[in-house]
Amino acid sequence: MVGLPARGKTFVARKVARYLTWLGHHTRLFNAGDYRRAMLGSMHNHEFFDPNNAEGKMARLAVAQAALDDLFAWLRKDGEVGIYDATNTTRARRDLVIARCIEENVQPLFLEIICDEDSVIEANIRGTKLFSPDYANVAPEEAVRDFHARISHYQSTYEPIGPDDTSYIKYIDKGRQLVINRAGGDIAQSIVRLLMNLRGVRKSVWLTRHGESVYNGLGLLGGDPELSPKGLAFAKRLSRFVKIQGETMRDAVVWTSTLKRTVQTVNELGVEVVTFRELDEINAGLCEAKSYSEIEREMPDEFAARKADKYRYRYPRGESYQDLIRRLQPVVLAFEREARPLLVVGHQAVLRAFYAYLAATPPEQCPHLSIPLHTVIELKPKIYDMAERRIPLD
Amino acid sequence: MVGLPARGKTFVARKVARYLTWLGHHTRLFNAGDYRRAMLGSMHNHEFFDPNNAEGKMARLAVAQAALDDLFAWLRKDGEVGIYDATNTTRARRDLVIARCIEENVQPLFLEIICDEDSVIEANIRGTKLFSPDYANVAPEEAVRDFHARISHYQSTYEPIGPDDTSYIKYIDKGRQLVINRAGGDIAQSIVRLLMNLRGVRKSVWLTRHGESVYNGLGLLGGDPELSPKGLAFAKRLSRFVKIQGETMRDAVVWTSTLKRTVQTVNELGVEVVTFRELDEINAGLCEAKSYSEIEREMPDEFAARKADKYRYRYPRGESYQDLIRRLQPVVLAFEREARPLLVVGHQAVLRAFYAYLAATPPEQCPHLSIPLHTVIELKPKIYDMAERRIPLD
Repeated sequence: MVGLPARGKTFVARKVARYLTWLGHHTRLFNAGDYRRAMLGSMHNHEFFDPNNAEGKMARLAVAQAALDDLFAWLRKDGEVGIYDATNTTRARRDLVIARCIEENVQPLFLEIICDEDSVIEANIRGTKLFSPDYANVAPEEAVRDFHARISHYQSTYEPIGPDDTSYIKYIDKGRQLVINRAGGDIAQSIVRLLMNLRGVRKSVWLTRHGESVYNGLGLLGGDPELSPKGLAFAKRLSRFVKIQGETMRDAVVWTSTLKRTVQTVNELGVEVVTFRELDEINAGLCEAKSYSEIEREMPDEFAARKADKYRYRYPRGESYQDLIRRLQPVVLAFEREARPLLVVGHQAVLRAFYAYLAATPPEQCPHLSIPLHTVIELKPKIYDMAERRIPLD
Repeated sequence: MVGLPARGKTFVARKVARYLTWLGHHTRLFNAGDYRRAMLGSMHNHEFFDPNNAEGKMARLAVAQAALDDLFAWLRKDGEVGIYDATNTTRARRDLVIARCIEENVQPLFLEIICDEDSVIEANIRGTKLFSPDYANVAPEEAVRDFHARISHYQSTYEPIGPDDTSYIKYIDKGRQLVINRAGGDIAQSIVRLLMNLRGVRKSVWLTRHGESVYNGLGLLGGDPELSPKGLAFAKRLSRFVKIQGETMRDAVVWTSTLKRTVQTVNELGVEVVTFRELDEINAGLCEAKSYSEIEREMPDEFAARKADKYRYRYPRGESYQDLIRRLQPVVLAFEREARPLLVVGHQAVLRAFYAYLAATPPEQCPHLSIPLHTVIELKPKIYDMAERRIPLD
C-alpha cells in the first residue's frame, strides 16, 4: 500500500484481503501501525512522525523492517499474497520493498490510495483514527489536531508513484480515477474488479434462507419446489419483521435467487426485489431431487467423496462450494457497489458462500457454517468488520 | 474512439464491438474512414488531412456529422452501444460529440488509444493501412510515406484527453497502462476486462468437438460418458492431423473441458493441455442423460418452451445458451491473452457459444450454428476477422 495517512489505505487493504482470501488466494495483511504499537507502545504524538526526528525515523524504519520480515517469512512458508499496509510514501521506502521482493523472488504490486477531498479525510480521521489505541486517552479535538500534524509530516516528504516501470494501481478519489500500470495478472485483475465496484458505503445486511420448502419437508436436495405451509408462515413473519425494523429497512433492497422458494418468501414484503441467478442454490447435478440416504445407497463413491472434502467435492454435472464462490463473484461485487441496506433471501449453500465473504471466514470452512432455516442473520457495519446477530423467526 | 491514425483504434474498437455484442449488448461500429470513402471516394492523399486545408477540413467535418447522424439514428431505433471509430483528436471535435450526446440523452465514454512505439505504428501501417482502398493503386513505399504525412497533420493539432470530468478510458502502449476515469458502469467494466486481457496477437484457432461418446450413440443429452470405439478412432485421426500440421501447431496449446469425452479425445496428442471447467457442455439440469424424445414425452412443456426460444430457454436447474455465454467469459478473455495457436476440444453447445465470439455471429444465432462431430473448424487470422475452413476427419 502507498498513501498519506487517513486516505483509506487500511479500509481498501482489508477489502482486497477479504476478496482475495474468499477467491482462494491465501492472503494476509501486515499493518505497520500494529507493529509500531506492539514494538514501541501506542501514544506517539505527531513528533514521532516528523522526518527531522532522527530517533523517530530510525524507530519507524525498524518497525517497517519487522513487518516486512514477518511478511516474507509468511510468504516463504505458505502465503500467496502478503499485503504490506504502511504509508510507503517515499521512493526510498518503496525501493527498500522492491529490493526485498527481488531478494525473495516475489512480484511487487503497489496500490496507491490518493484522495484530496477534505471531507473524506476528515471523516476517515473521525471515523477510524480516533478509535486507534494511539489516542486512547486523548481528547477528540486534540487527537484530530495531532493527526493532522502527523499527516503534514508525511506530506512534506510524499513522492507519489511516478509513471515509471513498476507495477502499480492508483485508486484516486474513491474510484473516480483508476490507473493500472504493468499489472495484468489474475490477482491484479481481481483487485481492479473489486476497486471498480468499491463504493465504501457501510451498510447493514440481513441474510435469510427461503421459508421451508416441500423438499425440505421430504429431505430432498435442490430442485425448484414451492414453499410448504410452514414456509408460507415464515414468509408472513419475515414480512412483519421487515415492517418492525421501520426506518432501518425503509430503503432496503431485497435480493433473491430465481428459484420459486425464495421468490415466494419475499412475495409479501412490498419492497424492491432484484433477482440474481447467481444466488440459485448449489447445483447438485445428477443428485438433484434425491435425498442424502438415496445418494449414499445409489452412489456410494460420490457420498464418500463428498464426505472426504465437502469444500472441493463437485456433484456429478453439478457444482462444488469452490465453484459456488467463483459463480458468486458478481453478487459480491454488486454488494460492494450497492449503497442501500440489503436483505438477501437465499439458500443454505449459497448463503454460506456469501456469508464467508461478509464475515471474512476462510472459504474452506463454508460447508460447515450454520445457516438455519427461519432465522435472520443481521450484519451491522463496524469500523472494518460486521457485528452479527441471529434472530430466529419462529 | 480517440487517437492518432495507426494506433490500433479500429482493431480495439472491433474487439470491443465483438465482445459487447457477444455479451448481449446491441453494438455497432461507425467508421469515419468508411463514411469518407463512401461520400468522397477513396484516393485522398495526405493533403486532404492537412488542418490548413480549409476545403478538406469542411469535407471531413461533413463526414463526421454524417457518421454521427447515422450512429444516433441507430441508437434511437434499437441500438445500445454505438462506437464512433474516428480520430477525434481535437477537443473541439470531442465537444461536438459530447454536445450531440447531451442532445440525444446518450452517455458518452471516450476510449483513447495511445501508442508511441514506432515499431507498433509501423506494423499497423504495413499490416492494415496498405490494404485500405485509400492506397489501392499506390506503391507500398509511397503509401507508407503518405500515411506518415497524414499522421503528422493529426499530430500537429492533437490534444489528448485531459484529466477533466468526462468519462474515459486510456489504453496506453498496448495495455502497459490503463487509465479509467469516471467510468464504472457495466459496459465500462466489460471493456476494462477485455482491455486488461487484450494482447493483440493474431493467432490461429482450431475448434473440434470430442470424439463420438457412448451417449452420442444412444442419443442421450449431457452426462459424463466415455468415448465410443468410433470416438476413440477420431482421437487417433485428430492426433495424426495435429502431427501433419507440423510447424503451424508445434507451439499450440490444447484446451479441453473437465469431461471425460474431451480429455480422452486429446489423450494421444502429446501437447500441453489446459482444462477449463467453463468449457464443460451446457448443463441440461433435470434433462441430463435423457433423450429428446424422452423429454418430449415426460416434459412436454419444457420441450415446447425450448423449441419456442432455443437461445433463452433454460433447462430446469440447468443452463440456457445465454447463461453459457456468461459462463464462457473467462475462456474468451484467456483466448485474448493467449499468444500461442490454440486447439479447443469442446462440446456442441459450448463451441457454438465460443464460435459466436470468434466469428462475430449474433449470439441469438448460437443454437443454430452447425458444429458437427469429427470435424475440425480452422480459423486463421485475417486483418480484422478470421478465415474459416472446415476439415472433416472421417
